[in-house]
Amino acid sequence: MFGLSKDKEFYELFERAANNTCLGAKALDDLLQNYPKDAEQKTKKMKDIEHEGDQITHKTVEMVNKTFVTPLEREDIYELITKLDDVLDLMDAAVSRLSLYKIPYATEHSKSFAKILVRATETLLKGITSMRKIKDQKEIFDCCIAVNTMENEGDVLLHKSMVDLFEGKKDDPIYVIKWKEIYEDLERATDRCEDVANIVEGIVLKNA
Amino acid sequence: MFGLSKDKEFYELFERAANNTCLGAKALDDLLQNYPKDAEQKTKKMKDIEHEGDQITHKTVEMVNKTFVTPLEREDIYELITKLDDVLDLMDAAVSRLSLYKIPYATEHSKSFAKILVRATETLLKGITSMRKIKDQKEIFDCCIAVNTMENEGDVLLHKSMVDLFEGKKDDPIYVIKWKEIYEDLERATDRCEDVANIVEGIVLKNA
Amino acid sequence: MFGLSKDKEFYELFERAANNTCLGAKALDDLLQNYPKDAEQKTKKMKDIEHEGDQITHKTVEMVNKTFVTPLEREDIYELITKLDDVLDLMDAAVSRLSLYKIPYATEHSKSFAKILVRATETLLKGITSMRKIKDQKEIFDCCIAVNTMENEGDVLLHKSMVDLFEGKKDDPIYVIKWKEIYEDLERATDRCEDVANIVEGIVLKNA
Repeated sequence: MFGLSKDKEFYELFERAANNTCLGAKALDDLLQNYPKDAEQKTKKMKDIEHEGDQITHKTVEMVNKTFVTPLEREDIYELITKLDDVLDLMDAAVSRLSLYKIPYATEHSKSFAKILVRATETLLKGITSMRKIKDQKEIFDCCIAVNTMENEGDVLLHKSMVDLFEGKKDDPIYVIKWKEIYEDLERATDRCEDVANIVEGIVLKNA
Repeated sequence: MFGLSKDKEFYELFERAANNTCLGAKALDDLLQNYPKDAEQKTKKMKDIEHEGDQITHKTVEMVNKTFVTPLEREDIYELITKLDDVLDLMDAAVSRLSLYKIPYATEHSKSFAKILVRATETLLKGITSMRKIKDQKEIFDCCIAVNTMENEGDVLLHKSMVDLFEGKKDDPIYVIKWKEIYEDLERATDRCEDVANIVEGIVLKNA
Repeated sequence: MFGLSKDKEFYELFERAANNTCLGAKALDDLLQNYPKDAEQKTKKMKDIEHEGDQITHKTVEMVNKTFVTPLEREDIYELITKLDDVLDLMDAAVSRLSLYKIPYATEHSKSFAKILVRATETLLKGITSMRKIKDQKEIFDCCIAVNTMENEGDVLLHKSMVDLFEGKKDDPIYVIKWKEIYEDLERATDRCEDVANIVEGIVLKNA
């Protein structure tokens, strides 16, 4: 009985983390599509979400360390919550750079990255919510495959972004350096989404 | 009996992965030494090898998750196959950048990196092939030490490459940015070779 | 009895590693505050410390692999010693870049990074020395919290450094590229300090 209630707490923390990461992607998207409208206030919102992510992660790690029998392997719980938080951290890093580097307008490519990240984090939330009832294997695997596809979209988009940057801004290396960083953060956020999907897939296979 | 045949499958997957990574290094070398001759076709070949690497990795992870008793610790199997694939991914990333950044010619330093990576991956293949008969400890350890030395060569080469880049191309920061990325990918590929060697060494020590 | 003496050896290795990383931070600080005075000789000293770190790490990993019953989980021992070494490697990388990139003078921001790293590694040494008598939980946790705060200082400092770089050196992109690398190495060193603190915290919680 005690064990079961602990299990529930872990799954709730996963869902809270996935939901919060999804909120982060939406905050990023909202900022970029309307940039620089209300940029300061929206950057602060992103920071709050990132802070909430840290707290969920910290609470989960604390619970792993204190709980004798965990519903899943400790390592899997740790990896899942950490990588979910990495997605958020990277989106927050991209947002911070916009103000830090005094970026005057958002590029189309950055808006496309935000769209991919909204879809990927929504799909992860769906998959992670299904984890409690591991019988829905098919649905979870479909989510994982979809996120893998989105990560590939992220790769292609980064390539396109870099080509345009090097071709179009030959004479402004500082501009190139700044946007290269931002694009790489966003692309790495899609990489971490794929990592989360792979961890979820592994958990389901092991517990099938 | 069943267990034994499973063991064999794992070792076969390791050897396939090591061999495939070695093929990748040779494709990289072939491309760079003759660059830009047949660059498009050779870039495609590299991509095919990289794709094959993904499939071997995926198959191995799937087998780890489904097999009850694995010949080595799960974590070791996972780390070994993942890092071998990272070597390949980084070499493929360097190759992609050549076309992406419209690089007109290959530098001498990039050709030297390719030579190091061919030697390092050949040595890893030799060490990993010896893993089945763990009695040949001496031979395996010699391979590991050799790969560590090659990683040091990679470090020194990166340093030289960067000095030449900063000194020689002061007036072309975009050129500096592009080649810096390529060199760093290649050097990180040698780092991952060292990681693989360290994992192999650890496995042999634990199972001695 | 045998077990106990092995335990002692592990804790001694942790303390040696923490102390050595702390020496590295002091060597970095000494170099930067007086830069470029005796730069060549001080760079060599840093390299010696880094080399000593490699040896401690190697010895620890070897002992983990050979010891049947370890005082802490293998994974924790491995992570602790590896991340401590990463702190040192990153400080050494920053020092190497100074000579490699022929940097003529040290910026104020780089000196501030060195100060943070001295404090963070001293605090880690204190926490790690307290680990033997895990009863002093409060003191260890205080160290961990303090290191987390210092990592935040590192983040803020990196932000300031980048703003100054992009604003102040608009016309010298090569300068921007060089210092961006150095600052990022130093900031990543503070990140790894935080990782070490988190690992220590986790170990204490699990063994409470």
